[in-house]
Amino acid sequence: MALDIGGTKIAGALVDSDGTLVTRALRPTPATEDAGTVMGAVEEVLAELAADPRRGLVTAVGIGSAGPVDASAGTVSPVNVPGWRGFPLVDAVRKATGGLPVVLTGDGVAIAAAEHWQGAARGYRNALCMVVSTGVGGGFVLGGALHPGPTGNAGHIGHISVDLDGDPCPCGARGCVERIASGPNIARRALEGGWRPKEGQEPTAAAVAEAARAGDPVARASFDRAAQALAAGIAAAATLVEIEVAVVGGGVAGAGPVLFDPLRAHLRRYATLSFASAVTVLPAHLGTDAGLVGAAAAAFGVAAGGGG
Amino acid sequence: MALDIGGTKIAGALVDSDGTLVTRALRPTPATEDAGTVMGAVEEVLAELAADPRRGLVTAVGIGSAGPVDASAGTVSPVNVPGWRGFPLVDAVRKATGGLPVVLTGDGVAIAAAEHWQGAARGYRNALCMVVSTGVGGGFVLGGALHPGPTGNAGHIGHISVDLDGDPCPCGARGCVERIASGPNIARRALEGGWRPKEGQEPTAAAVAEAARAGDPVARASFDRAAQALAAGIAAAATLVEIEVAVVGGGVAGAGPVLFDPLRAHLRRYATLSFASAVTVLPAHLGTDAGLVGAAAAAFGVAAGGGG
Repeated sequence: MALDIGGTKIAGALVDSDGTLVTRALRPTPATEDAGTVMGAVEEVLAELAADPRRGLVTAVGIGSAGPVDASAGTVSPVNVPGWRGFPLVDAVRKATGGLPVVLTGDGVAIAAAEHWQGAARGYRNALCMVVSTGVGGGFVLGGALHPGPTGNAGHIGHISVDLDGDPCPCGARGCVERIASGPNIARRALEGGWRPKEGQEPTAAAVAEAARAGDPVARASFDRAAQALAAGIAAAATLVEIEVAVVGGGVAGAGPVLFDPLRAHLRRYATLSFASAVTVLPAHLGTDAGLVGAAAAAFGVAAGGGG
Repeated sequence: MALDIGGTKIAGALVDSDGTLVTRALRPTPATEDAGTVMGAVEEVLAELAADPRRGLVTAVGIGSAGPVDASAGTVSPVNVPGWRGFPLVDAVRKATGGLPVVLTGDGVAIAAAEHWQGAARGYRNALCMVVSTGVGGGFVLGGALHPGPTGNAGHIGHISVDLDGDPCPCGARGCVERIASGPNIARRALEGGWRPKEGQEPTAAAVAEAARAGDPVARASFDRAAQALAAGIAAAATLVEIEVAVVGGGVAGAGPVLFDPLRAHLRRYATLSFASAVTVLPAHLGTDAGLVGAAAAAFGVAAGGGG
């Protein structure tokens, strides 16, 4: 059984040993409510899954949660769910499921587990898997195994600084990858440069991508800058821990060549040392189900065993 | 037996199981000569060590080499030794020692092995160990074990970009940590700001440190900028792979509080996420012998076993 807990929705699924989602349940996250109300939504998801007769076959629960998490303590403190600060999610889910073993990881680590098990990172021993969306997150596979780090947060590539004098980031640092490359920042930069969405269109990164594909220079420049920051971040990861591939998913990656072409070009400029220069960028294979598939992988322990 | 191969010197030692160097040998690196001449200097070091009666007790050779190295292929291509490009050092040393097993790592990884075995990183399960000197290098201990990466180059923190629009680095990228924080760059920046060494004094980072201690604002600013770049790099490592401690050694670290005080202050600004913000900075314990001690650790396999 898998849970994917984000600031917008709480998704659950029964997942078979092939990674197929056989039953699903979904609730909006009551993100501004108190701790018990948020946990109540999780319990509703679990109850809906328990109605499936195959629930009796479940042997473990995997949770991928918005971070920061503390996998060693079994607690979560999602930035966008203020009611949960050090919330003992592992204990609460164990109780709600009658004592099943529960494995908690950060959502970026879950994505990496999913792409390594079923997706674009399959067969690679050293990979960074990223989501570029409202935020920028990620997780590592190192030496053939998931690398969650001691607290389950490793791979937080959105909050490394690639521009040490750059714009302040909500995290408190400056010039973070997310501050430059996230969808909202792509849209903001395009608007600041004079780009405007079409009539009736929201000013999103997807709209900027559409304009970039049509040749709008401001839109293209905004994607180019995002690609430059992502390239510097991926190059840093390749230089620090040696990765063979960076898998990039999330809504912004849906822009396709508008993002991936300048990303690959910039990556050649930043990943210069011999052992890092061969790092390849691939689009993610799994879509919005990646978090659930990865949480299931963590529960099955397949990612830790280098599955793929 | 241990070899530490750099662009300036080739050092060798017989090392006992406690990490004590019981015999040493040293040759200057004929860095501009052909491959055979450089290997000749390595063979002279090995021959001098072989004259020691305890040589008969040696069971393995550990090599820490200036990089890039390729530990999987057994070859080295040190930037400052142009005659060695893909040079099969492991085979050559195996032959020169009558067939002993040979373990090759990058010099940054060797430093990490040494500090984890005998020095400031002892007892930590997740550490980055750095040398800040003419260049900036490093290596990781992750999950209690050395993390050399597939080719033995992981931890190259000197060549991650923390200033994506910054000054060109000799590696080909821009704004690398080394381009801002190495000794020569500290001296260059101070000179550009109007600082001058005392009469008869060379314009080195050590001279800048002396001026900074005496209150010279330009000298202090140059160290502060180096500290800022190192902090952004250490924060990136903590955010990407979760480290508890960053151990900083090398000639520039000899500046003491002139470097470490601003480094700790900047680190609080860049390492902001809960799981990264507790990362501590410690001065290295081992001096110039760290490369030999670490190469021996790699040969003994103590670092891989989480020794400490």
